[in-house]
Formats: sequence, C-alpha cells, structure tokens
Amino acid sequence: MAEKLLEGKIGIITGALDENSIAWKTALKAKEQGARFVLTNAPIAMRMGSIQTLAEQCETIVIPADATSLADIEKLYAEAKAYLGGDFDFILHSIGMSPNIRKGRSYGDLNYDWAMKSYDVSAISFHKMMQVAEKMDVMKTWGSIVGLSYIAAQRVYPFYTDMADAKALLESIARGYGYRFGKAKKVRVNTISQSPTKTTAGTGIGGFDSFFNFADQISPLGNASAEACAEYIITLFSDFTRMVTMQNLFHDGGYSHTGISEEIMEAFGTK
Amino acid sequence: MAEKLLEGKIGIITGALDENSIAWKTALKAKEQGARFVLTNAPIAMRMGSIQTLAEQCETIVIPADATSLADIEKLYAEAKAYLGGDFDFILHSIGMSPNIRKGRSYGDLNYDWAMKSYDVSAISFHKMMQVAEKMDVMKTWGSIVGLSYIAAQRVYPFYTDMADAKALLESIARGYGYRFGKAKKVRVNTISQSPTKTTAGTGIGGFDSFFNFADQISPLGNASAEACAEYIITLFSDFTRMVTMQNLFHDGGYSHTGISEEIMEAFGTK
Amino acid sequence: MAEKLLEGKIGIITGALDENSIAWKTALKAKEQGARFVLTNAPIAMRMGSIQTLAEQCETIVIPADATSLADIEKLYAEAKAYLGGDFDFILHSIGMSPNIRKGRSYGDLNYDWAMKSYDVSAISFHKMMQVAEKMDVMKTWGSIVGLSYIAAQRVYPFYTDMADAKALLESIARGYGYRFGKAKKVRVNTISQSPTKTTAGTGIGGFDSFFNFADQISPLGNASAEACAEYIITLFSDFTRMVTMQNLFHDGGYSHTGISEEIMEAFGTK
Amino acid sequence: MAEKLLEGKIGIITGALDENSIAWKTALKAKEQGARFVLTNAPIAMRMGSIQTLAEQCETIVIPADATSLADIEKLYAEAKAYLGGDFDFILHSIGMSPNIRKGRSYGDLNYDWAMKSYDVSAISFHKMMQVAEKMDVMKTWGSIVGLSYIAAQRVYPFYTDMADAKALLESIARGYGYRFGKAKKVRVNTISQSPTKTTAGTGIGGFDSFFNFADQISPLGNASAEACAEYIITLFSDFTRMVTMQNLFHDGGYSHTGISEEIMEAFGTK
Repeated sequence: MAEKLLEGKIGIITGALDENSIAWKTALKAKEQGARFVLTNAPIAMRMGSIQTLAEQCETIVIPADATSLADIEKLYAEAKAYLGGDFDFILHSIGMSPNIRKGRSYGDLNYDWAMKSYDVSAISFHKMMQVAEKMDVMKTWGSIVGLSYIAAQRVYPFYTDMADAKALLESIARGYGYRFGKAKKVRVNTISQSPTKTTAGTGIGGFDSFFNFADQISPLGNASAEACAEYIITLFSDFTRMVTMQNLFHDGGYSHTGISEEIMEAFGTK
Repeated sequence: MAEKLLEGKIGIITGALDENSIAWKTALKAKEQGARFVLTNAPIAMRMGSIQTLAEQCETIVIPADATSLADIEKLYAEAKAYLGGDFDFILHSIGMSPNIRKGRSYGDLNYDWAMKSYDVSAISFHKMMQVAEKMDVMKTWGSIVGLSYIAAQRVYPFYTDMADAKALLESIARGYGYRFGKAKKVRVNTISQSPTKTTAGTGIGGFDSFFNFADQISPLGNASAEACAEYIITLFSDFTRMVTMQNLFHDGGYSHTGISEEIMEAFGTK
Repeated sequence: MAEKLLEGKIGIITGALDENSIAWKTALKAKEQGARFVLTNAPIAMRMGSIQTLAEQCETIVIPADATSLADIEKLYAEAKAYLGGDFDFILHSIGMSPNIRKGRSYGDLNYDWAMKSYDVSAISFHKMMQVAEKMDVMKTWGSIVGLSYIAAQRVYPFYTDMADAKALLESIARGYGYRFGKAKKVRVNTISQSPTKTTAGTGIGGFDSFFNFADQISPLGNASAEACAEYIITLFSDFTRMVTMQNLFHDGGYSHTGISEEIMEAFGTK
Repeated sequence: MAEKLLEGKIGIITGALDENSIAWKTALKAKEQGARFVLTNAPIAMRMGSIQTLAEQCETIVIPADATSLADIEKLYAEAKAYLGGDFDFILHSIGMSPNIRKGRSYGDLNYDWAMKSYDVSAISFHKMMQVAEKMDVMKTWGSIVGLSYIAAQRVYPFYTDMADAKALLESIARGYGYRFGKAKKVRVNTISQSPTKTTAGTGIGGFDSFFNFADQISPLGNASAEACAEYIITLFSDFTRMVTMQNLFHDGGYSHTGISEEIMEAFGTK
C-alpha cells in the first residue's frame, strides 16, 4: 500500500520568508507528504515576511529564533519538541545573508566585521544548529539535515562576493558534521546546490537577472525552480536516501556540468 | 492523497543477474512503487542467473538483448514498447564486465582487445542505449535514465584495473548524453556511484573483501547495501528529481568525503 | 649556481605537427632548457606537417610511430634509447583525433567504430606508451609523463562529442598508471587541461571560434597560449615537481573556476 | 643562457617558524633561485621560533606583523617595499592556527569565538593580505600569490575539526580573489594542498602520527616533504606558470587520487 513519503516524520523548517522562498515551498510539500513540523525564522525576517500565513496553511506554529544564537536554538528545539511531541526526523537550514552584498561592497573592499556576520548567519549557524541538536540529543536515528548552497562555492561569480566563501564554509560544515552525526546517530547531512532562484533573497543580489538568464541558457533543462527544489528536499528527508550523506548535490537542470550550450555559442560566434 | 512513487510509469531494467544484484532489488522496489517494466539481460548472463524467477515476481517478461548490439537494443525497445503499451519513463543501465579482471591481467599487462571489450560492455553500451532510444524516440518527456558507477572513476583502486577507466567513460557519457537528451526531450541522465556491494559481479573482483572492509570502516554510515541503492534509484526515477541531471551521485554512506575515520586511525597509530 | 631546468634530461615528444602545436613549442622550450629528446609522430601526420624543420632546430631526429601500435612504440623506444644514449626522463603525449568530429557526426549519431578509434588514438595510446615503457623498463626513476587534456572531460561542450569521452578516459588512465608507475619507479603521470588553443587540430573543431571567444571572456587572465602551456609542461618535467602525480592540472587562465565574468554578465543583462 | 628561476624577483614570505616549516624551506630555495624577499611572522610566533637565523642566511630582515591586522599588513608592505626597493612579484601565505585544536575541543563541542579566530588567522588573513595589496597597489603585473591548504577542505579528517572549514574558506578566497586580481593586474592566486608534513604546527595536531603513516602508505610516491613543497612553490612563483590561477594544487605524492593501496589492502584483508 502506498504511503506518503514523510508520513509520521517530524522536523524543523527554517527560512520561510515569503511564498517565493524555497523553505516556503518545502513546508507545503512536506505537509502534503504527511510531515508535521514547526517553522522558524529570525525575528527581523519574520517582521518582513508573511510566515504566519504559511503556518496556518501547514497547521503549525512559528517559533522565532536567531540561528546564530545558541540560546535561541536551544529554546527552538525545546519548544518544537514539546509542540511536536518527539525528536526530529529532519531539519532544513535555509538561512543566508551578507551585509557586504546589501551595502554594495565589492570583494576587494570587504568590511571584515560584516564578512564575519555573513559567515555566522549563512554558515556557522548550520554548525550551531547541529552542535546544539547533538548536545540536546533531539535528532532521531536515521534523521536527515539539509542546507542550501550555490555553485559559487566552487566557481567565482563576482557579484556574490563573501557569500561565495560562506557557501564554501557551509558545504565544509556539512561534510564535517555529516561524518560526526553519521557515526553518532546515523543522521545524514547534505547540501543542495540550487540554480539561481527568483526568491526575495536571490533577487536582491546585484546582477541577478543577467546571471539568471545566462544560467538558464546554459542549463539543458533550464534553471530549477524553488518548487522543484522543494520536491528534491523531500526525497532527502525520506527513507529512500538513507545512505546519502556528506554530499553537495547539484539541483540545477544540468548547469554544473555544462561548459557551453548551443545558445551561448550562437551569442559568441559572430563576435 | 498518497500515491505510489512510480505510479503509472513504465520502463526498462537491465542487469538483474540474481537476487544479490542492484538491478534485481530495483525491480522489486519499482514494482512495489507502482511501475511496470520489462527486464533484460545478455543471453549469456541469463543462462547463468535466475532472472525468470524475478520476472514472475514482477509479473513481467524478460527480453534477451546484448547491450553492445544496436540491433538487439532496437529489438528490445520495440518489443518492450509493444508489451508495455507506451514509451518509457525510465531505464536502468546496470551492466559491466572486464575480461582483463576475469583473466587476472594487471593494469600494466592489459590485453587491449579485452580493454575495448570492457569499455564496450560497461560504458559504450550506455551510449548505444541512449542513441537508439533517441533515434527511435521511445523516451517520454521528463524521463529518467540511470547508470551505475563506482568511485574508481575518480581515485585508483589497483584491483579495479580497466573497469576504472570504463567507469570514467560511463560517467562522461552520462554528462554528454544528459546534455543532449535534456535539450531534446527533458530526459535526465545520471550515474550513481555506489559503495562496494556484495553482488555476484562485485565479489568476483580480486581483493574485494579487503576493500569492502576498509570502505565499511571509513564510511560513517557503513557501506550502502544493494537494497538501499535500489531505493535511491527509485527517487531518481520519480517526479521529485526532475531537475537533477548530468550528475554522478555518491551513494556510499559518506565514504567519498571521508579522509580517515577513528577506526582507521587506531589501526595505524601504533605502526 | 644556476642551471637550466632540464639540464641533462632526455625524453620523447609526440605530436608536433606544425609550429602552432603545443608539442612544437614544448620541444623548443625543452631544447632551450637543456634537454635532449627525439620527436615522433604518426606517419600520416608527418606527411601533413613540417616536423623535420623542428627536428633541425632541435638538433635531433624524428622517429615515425603510430602510438596505437605496440610494435611501433617498442621500435620508437628502442631507437630513441640508442640515439639518446640512455633511459627517458620525460614523455609528452600530445595525440588526439576523432573521426566522428572530422566527419561531422553529432553526439546522437556516433559511429561506434569511429568512437573506438577516437578512444584508441586519443587515450588508449597513452596507456600503451606507458605499458610498453614499463615492460621495456625505459623510464628513469623520478621520470615524468604528461598528457594533454581539456575541460570537456568534466563539462559538456556539445561540439566536442566523443573527444570529451576520450579525454575523460585519458585522465583516468593518467591516474591509474600514475599509481602503478609511482610505486614501480617513482615515475609521475599527470594531465594538463589546457585552454582552447588555436592549434591546427583545435581549429578543426566546428564552433571553435565562438567557444574560444567565450572562454577568453570568462577567464580572468584570458585563454592560455600554446607557448604558455609549453612552459608549464617544462615545470612538470623538471625536478621541482617530483611529488605531483595523478593530477589533472588546469592551465587555463582561471577559466575552470570562473562561473561568470563581468563581460558575460553585460552580454546577458539586457536580454 | 641559463638563469635562476626567480632571478630579479622580490616578495614576501610569511610563516617561517623554524627549520621544519614549509615557509623556511621556501625561503632558502627562493634565495637559491635568485629572489630577494622579506620574512614576516606574528610577534608571538617570532618569540617561539628562530626566524632571525633564517633572515641571516637569506641576507634579509624580519618584519613582525599580525596578518589579521590591516594596520600591520599595511606597515609590512610599506616597510618591505622600502627595504626591497620595489613592488612584489610573490607572496607566500603560510599561516594557520586553531584554538579549538590547541585546547582539544572536538568538532561537536566547538567554541565559536575560537572558531572565528581559526578562520581569521588561517583564512581571512589571506583575503586581508590581498585586499590591502590591491588597495596599496604593491603587486607587480604577473605576480603570484600562494596559500597552503590541506585535503581536509574536501574530505573529513576528524582530528582536524575547524581547521578543515578554515581551509575550505582559504581555498574559496583563493578563487574569489584570484578572479579579481587576475582581471586587475594579471596576478595569479593558487593554493597548494600539501601532504601531512612533520612541521612544528602539523605535529601539534592530535592523531598526526597515525594519519601521517596512513597517508604515506596510500600515496604511491609517499608523503611529500616540506622541502619538495618548497620546490613546487618556486615553480608557482616563476614565469613558467603564469596562466595557472584560482587552482587548488595537490602536492601529495598521489594521495588525493588514490582510493586504496596494496599495503592498505593487506592490512584489511585478514580482518
């Protein structure tokens, strides 16, 4: 008999700002596939977004938490566990922000306090969420933790500045904690390297449109949407992927392994 | 409402030799998830194995075909289409063989005719199956094609000799045809790089046991089983992974990104 | 006291067709740096090129040899050893050819006999040259062997068709034989993944100009020239790189790790 | 006529603690190859080491500087430029330190202030040195900048904890700034991923010996020594490698691309 993919699973979804967010789409898909979960976001992000609407759709609550604060993460886990009635099968980390990008500082003019903030919010928070989870022992055996990355961790996109370094850090943390959590509790940890996505966060990056178009013309399947990403995340939370861990998984319509496309060749053929 | 993951999908599964085969497990899982498919294997492999038993369990037929023969592939597709009543949503390529390994020739003493045979059976057959599928136009839009690989395509395992080169070729073909089939019909093509697996083929390789043990001690989740691999393949055939293409996906309990484990360190600490 | 980089070293340089060839430039640089060597090329390539002119400049001889023929390789090594008076410190493999590209066959319409020819000439010949060298024991301890590759081994360039697969095979062979030759005689084996280069071979590939321009605009240092590649090869033949082995080394002005450049962004910004 | 490899070149070498240091060996080789340079190290490291001895051997001065301090870097560059009489052709960044490792904190018990310190000292200092160099415009056209990394940036070595993440950050910075400095001034930036090395820093890491032995048995050429690394660095500072940039270059005797060796197989065959 068929069962929903996440039937009986419970977890935590961070970073659902508005209906364009990958986390937002993931929450809807997870609900559809039988999961129960709490939503969380930073207090400041919550004021800007519409996460309460999502919570209602998903019949759940929002627990505000700053993912760079160990105390907030502890509180989040305690309240989530109380609300959901058990330990967690999955966590989605979908958090990133660079003050240097927001303020338009180039990579040759970084403010290093802000760079530290970029790393802390976008990468170290991933480690903090896992370290606290392990210390509080709130992950179920064979649980699954996913972070969201971008190919700037491997190749340079000049407009992405210190977020590229933050994503490299994030992917390294996924490997490092994936090893540890795998040994400790069979918990797997992976990152998804997603196409440029028209989320509110993504489109805030200068030059986003030109890169979005370029990537779309390179990728044989076109850019992957936020909704498609949500579906992929569901597979990683399901029991069908238990032995996949410490990986950075490209979800990008083939972009990462395409050097050039016919469309791009035409554009450069006559120059 | 919940639906089986492969409900309504039809396809082709190659390489089910006996109940230890990844392809065998995949057939059972695919059946369980609502797929219909035909089985196929080389005539010589069929004589050695027990594929008819599997066909009965899966309520389907076996169509003998040598995957290095364009004529055999054409016949396979025509008969499969007639039997299943439509074009294919998925194909599993699980075919590999090295005469040099069978005959115990080392990498410094390769017989080059045999090496060509290794490439043809283990890698070029993958291209042939896709080229014929495209020419006959038998893949459905958004179909999924999967090949099975091994990390010897990236790193040297001395006992694996020319099969390592064949796997590198296989992964390259997955990228090359993935680009083409993506543009042409939104068909995705990926390889899974699986843990050493105690299949009949795997255990025939000299030194297999020592490597199996070593890999098992490196991997934080241990080696991935054939059954777990089958489950992962199901996700790649499902609609939840439509934008994943041209990738080589490690399914190995974390082996590929682990440099050393505590177990290995202990073994080498006192030497 | 300063010494030339290859003072006292002897070796073999394949593939010098004409003055645009990377091998041609390498021969001139090697001579300049104190090396002695023989040149070799396939009989058919010799008729088309001007290798005798190069031999005069380098004060050496040309020994015709088809690198797919074990007998020819044996003869080459025997004659080279007799002429040079000792075993070899270095070998440059710069050989590649695809009948499918020459005849304009697309990747979805490969002639498989021709594909086998592409692999044999462009990749397996590299294995053959090493296997024969090991069997005849003609490499000196700490010798260096280099092959020439292209990033199509990692990413798809549609016009490169089966040569992409041949390059993936070549790089795999470099790893496999590098392990073996390292253990046996401290000989290192590497491939250089070079920018698109305006050699006679390179420009024969359809769409070469558009890709050359595109790569040049992506690479922060621009495309690497044949002459620069020759200089890089000299470092790999020198004693300064003795512990570098089994690597594929990108020599491409930064192309391989650049996702997008400002120039490309401008081109796509207004679409 | 033969010339020394770094004849006429001037630069900066950081991190020479004592005669086991890679930076120490690099200074001696650079001197031997005709370069002039200043040495620099953090004031605290200078007290522990013997860098003045090296300065005498190299006929140069030591300028103390904390590479995490922008003011110190500015002073270093100004004084070095005055002493050497010109802009720089090369910089070696050989700086790393983790308070978490020193204090024995595991990866599941990181002190995050200390982790920030690890990143700052071991990785962000690399960015700072380049950002200040660009702002002060002290690099010569076609200059070369090298940082030292370790394969823990790609794979997990449990004892390496937050230094693995710092190395991933370092390599990302090399790519990001390599793109920028390449466009701006044809300056290339690379990291070398070196074998475990018996430096004073290296041997301070718990479990170092067992890993050193393991790596030595995997690598077909054995582990690369600090001296061999110094020679490799010289090639990257020379004019023979002008088009190599944004790369992470493994200098490890083949370790990175070896999955298992005969020695390791024997060790695990009977278990």
